[in-house]
Amino acid sequence: MRVLGMDPGLTRCGLGVVDGRAGRATMVAVGVVRTPSDAEASQRLMFLERELDGWLDRFEPDVVAVERVFADTNVTQVMNTAHATAIALLTAGKRDIPVVFHTPTEVKASVTGSGRADKAQVTMMVTRILKLASPPKPADAADALALAICHLWRGAATARLEALAKAGAR
Amino acid sequence: MRVLGMDPGLTRCGLGVVDGRAGRATMVAVGVVRTPSDAEASQRLMFLERELDGWLDRFEPDVVAVERVFADTNVTQVMNTAHATAIALLTAGKRDIPVVFHTPTEVKASVTGSGRADKAQVTMMVTRILKLASPPKPADAADALALAICHLWRGAATARLEALAKAGAR
Repeated sequence: MRVLGMDPGLTRCGLGVVDGRAGRATMVAVGVVRTPSDAEASQRLMFLERELDGWLDRFEPDVVAVERVFADTNVTQVMNTAHATAIALLTAGKRDIPVVFHTPTEVKASVTGSGRADKAQVTMMVTRILKLASPPKPADAADALALAICHLWRGAATARLEALAKAGAR
Repeated sequence: MRVLGMDPGLTRCGLGVVDGRAGRATMVAVGVVRTPSDAEASQRLMFLERELDGWLDRFEPDVVAVERVFADTNVTQVMNTAHATAIALLTAGKRDIPVVFHTPTEVKASVTGSGRADKAQVTMMVTRILKLASPPKPADAADALALAICHLWRGAATARLEALAKAGAR
């Protein structure tokens, strides 16, 4: 299964593609889309749409995993994140690719074992899990990879539980 | 000048087109786009995009006026509204149509004279200003028309102030 992880944002939008197979996760691509903060909101969203279209066409993920954002003290930031998320929903939807959401706590817990891990810990574990020569930079790129890993591992756990439930029902 | 007012939302998105000339405002069209709340978010945004594309192509507004949304106790509601707003920014941006934002207080003050007016007052004044035979329904439709009127009238006020400032600078 191939997952495109997305740490949504307009100033920096982290994107990471990870392939997963039984107990293994391999990085396929990682990057950050930046749009200028002094540009019009419309222009920023159009640019992000073009970039996402490109990533989806190039890497053809089975699923897009996006960070679920909650209220924040910075309203502008939350709105920009929500707008970026809408573009992910739209571009993925046009290709029939499902979009799933994971909270920051779920992502941290999946990757480091603790829902309260800091950014450095997440980056370190992502680097280790994907056997990368050096840590992915900036933090948004590492977060996007962490999201993809989280989805792969949570999906595997869910599948195991469902199999157990089925076996129990027999 | 022709304004498309939009009360953004996914369950109900109010749309109203108003033409404005010195001291006059005329309704061109009003409607509500609804998307099923049990559909996938991607599907809802794709549907809204198609509808907005249709309105923009059909009525060719000079500007799109959208309600600026602030934090709310209902996070899901805020996110849906932000996602709908992103689609407005995207579809209008592709046609080089500027998108402007007005707060609910600005809209109420423009239309009724009080920033704390209730929905019934806004609907009554919209009906009177546009000389409609009956009040526009549902409330989202009236709100969209109120947004368009607000933009026309605030724009006229700003233009007058700019002209005065210019005259004073001479």
